[in-house]
Amino acid sequence: MSEINLGGPQDLFYSKSNFVPLPLIVKTEGIWMEDDQGNRYIDVSSGPVVSNIGHGNEKVARAMYDQAVTMDFAYSRVSRHQPNIDLTRKIAELAGGGYQRVALASGGSEAMEIALKFLRQYVVAKGQLQKRKIITLSPSYHGGTIATLAITGDDALDPFIDGFAMKSERIPAPFQYRVPEGHSRESYRMECADALEAKIQELGADNVLAFVIEPIGGLATGAQMLSEDYANRVREICDRHGIYLVYDEILCGAGRSGKFLASSHWPKAKGDLVVLAKGLAAGYAPLGAVLMPGDMVDELAGLTGFNFSHTYNANPITCATGVAVLEVLEEQGLVAKAGLRGDYLRGKLELLAEKHACIGDIRGKGLLMAVELVADRKTKQGYPASFPPTEHIRIIGLQHGLIIYSRRTANGKHGDWFMVAPPLTITEAECDDLIERLDAVLGDFETAAVAHMGSQ
Amino acid sequence: MSEINLGGPQDLFYSKSNFVPLPLIVKTEGIWMEDDQGNRYIDVSSGPVVSNIGHGNEKVARAMYDQAVTMDFAYSRVSRHQPNIDLTRKIAELAGGGYQRVALASGGSEAMEIALKFLRQYVVAKGQLQKRKIITLSPSYHGGTIATLAITGDDALDPFIDGFAMKSERIPAPFQYRVPEGHSRESYRMECADALEAKIQELGADNVLAFVIEPIGGLATGAQMLSEDYANRVREICDRHGIYLVYDEILCGAGRSGKFLASSHWPKAKGDLVVLAKGLAAGYAPLGAVLMPGDMVDELAGLTGFNFSHTYNANPITCATGVAVLEVLEEQGLVAKAGLRGDYLRGKLELLAEKHACIGDIRGKGLLMAVELVADRKTKQGYPASFPPTEHIRIIGLQHGLIIYSRRTANGKHGDWFMVAPPLTITEAECDDLIERLDAVLGDFETAAVAHMGSQ
Repeated sequence: MSEINLGGPQDLFYSKSNFVPLPLIVKTEGIWMEDDQGNRYIDVSSGPVVSNIGHGNEKVARAMYDQAVTMDFAYSRVSRHQPNIDLTRKIAELAGGGYQRVALASGGSEAMEIALKFLRQYVVAKGQLQKRKIITLSPSYHGGTIATLAITGDDALDPFIDGFAMKSERIPAPFQYRVPEGHSRESYRMECADALEAKIQELGADNVLAFVIEPIGGLATGAQMLSEDYANRVREICDRHGIYLVYDEILCGAGRSGKFLASSHWPKAKGDLVVLAKGLAAGYAPLGAVLMPGDMVDELAGLTGFNFSHTYNANPITCATGVAVLEVLEEQGLVAKAGLRGDYLRGKLELLAEKHACIGDIRGKGLLMAVELVADRKTKQGYPASFPPTEHIRIIGLQHGLIIYSRRTANGKHGDWFMVAPPLTITEAECDDLIERLDAVLGDFETAAVAHMGSQ
Repeated sequence: MSEINLGGPQDLFYSKSNFVPLPLIVKTEGIWMEDDQGNRYIDVSSGPVVSNIGHGNEKVARAMYDQAVTMDFAYSRVSRHQPNIDLTRKIAELAGGGYQRVALASGGSEAMEIALKFLRQYVVAKGQLQKRKIITLSPSYHGGTIATLAITGDDALDPFIDGFAMKSERIPAPFQYRVPEGHSRESYRMECADALEAKIQELGADNVLAFVIEPIGGLATGAQMLSEDYANRVREICDRHGIYLVYDEILCGAGRSGKFLASSHWPKAKGDLVVLAKGLAAGYAPLGAVLMPGDMVDELAGLTGFNFSHTYNANPITCATGVAVLEVLEEQGLVAKAGLRGDYLRGKLELLAEKHACIGDIRGKGLLMAVELVADRKTKQGYPASFPPTEHIRIIGLQHGLIIYSRRTANGKHGDWFMVAPPLTITEAECDDLIERLDAVLGDFETAAVAHMGSQ
């Protein structure tokens, strides 16, 4: 191979079957992205639901610079530093009580790994060596490292995972859009909650370490939100069997749902641990965090300690970046705004649904919403494999100045949807602009779908 | 638990048995760190061997700021950006040929995970589903995520790992300081290399995916460097059995050994993949990378693609930071300097060894060296558990203005050592200063050790 074309963008690693153009982004500001051709786009999904405070924030950039020139690095094994202390305090405060300790990580997967390692080390230190199994939903998404892929509820990963990593035990996700025949929404989700108890009994509670679940789904279910009765039920089941409940708020946490923690929507169903990432540093630095109760951390520190760490855990520049992002979140009241703007945008999306029959479902909370695309609203039938809606909506989106993140999960079995999750800084006027463009996109999408079906 | 003391520094998670003071660092510059009491320290080990270009680099800080205000984030699934292209090109160029593609990660563990996932996906896509097993050295260190801890050669982790993750198969590390009786250094390391072949035959080559090894050891062996004959032998064994050779250069790569890749010291023993981190962004941003041959990447992209990614892989700010760090590395000729200063510093350490009998071994390459501490140089006997030398050397180091990273691996079985791995920007005068302080530290250390033994 010639050495002429060295390196290249990350997408060279992805499947060549992708046919959606990838604009070369050169400038970002607020909710806007601009490519090298001068085209401007609204960042409809905040990238992968990460850019919570909007792009190009000068205060955050300044905090990074100042930290880098003042004290760029100090290792947590041999020293302490104030940005670590400031960030963990701020996160614990924003979490609203019950989590006194905060372990820091470089991103969501690493943070989820820390949650799992912490619980495993905790039970090992207490002599409960057999507590190993993790229960998750199918489908679900919990990260991209080997261990987090292995607990991600996606059967398509089986050939990769089987014999290569320890797979989690799976129970059905409480879907509320496509409910099996003979069920109401409520009866189905309660059946799904009871599946947790059955699974624990099947495995033996002494062998089960944790139940990991997303309060509002991300890349697997497209903003599918748990309901309060389901959350309360699984919390009660975990308590009764001595299983740790871990909320994966990598995507839904840090304010996007209208509360800092999405799980705070159900005050009686508090998690034992909560994993945060994405919005926490809003795309400015790889940052993740695990909220933990102080008594568990202190107890373990008095036994073996939780001694696993990474070079970049709690590094000064990332910590200072996180502090600045959270200050912006507070100063601009973005958590409350996420709730208000979310309601506004949802109202507008519901008006679009009256006009565009391809909208099957609008779901989520605050500025974390997804729109499911269907070929037939009545039967909830999706599109044929020859017309992948997630790709088409992206291509047409680009033509109308929208960068959209969309997914077809489990080959369409669980639907095709795109994320409506702009930066929390979006104004009402910008919401209107987004909706106007989306109206045009959905119109063109429906025309293309009809043309495709007709040509079949 | 009261909510008064929320958050706190990362060390709250570690074992409470640590009794070494942790200075609160407030300022860093070049090779220097300063605490809140005004004490100044030389950063002897570059933190955990990360701060390769020195602290407080204004150019790097400026690059971060400029990138943050211009284009802070663009997601690799839906767009491209120039900093990604610039960084991967620069890394591939510096690697000196043979690796045309570069996958980016947020730190070393995540990069090692990418290397393992890439190889696994590659064989799965080609139908070689049974290729799963990974062989590593005992002892070794390959990361802090669950899957990388499971391939780390450290038996002390067994209670944590067994049944919780897939453990690697282990063969003995080719130690060259403590060689079993009846062996020469050469005969022992060749026996260790042959253990790889025996292990592959025991497992069946069709079941083995990769052999992962550090060219120069880090946290497990303290700068234990492979020899050329050993490297050539294991390369030949891997080739003959169709096993991928992965060099873990997380710690030793990016210039510290006097070459950009430590494995380049043995041109005939090229790795299939090389994992880099630490020095690559030198503490300024969580960055890791995997060097890969273009034909493997392109072949996989034409099959299933390598579709695992993380939100922050190849994010613009981290990429721009990496580019700036590598430009500093080039502009200041730091790779060559690592070789020169390493030789200079080693000469000075050898003079110290004439004076201080506690120095059992000085090893490593370039500015990646470790000093092994022994109670008896002749028998290579270590210190009793009641006098942990790694803690004492750190405490005395602080008193003389040195921040030292030290380790007792596997409860002392493989020796106690500290890292001499200052930033590559260190001047000769600063080397002299470091040595002068270390001379005093070792003197006090020996006095303390004698006093301790006498009181037993």
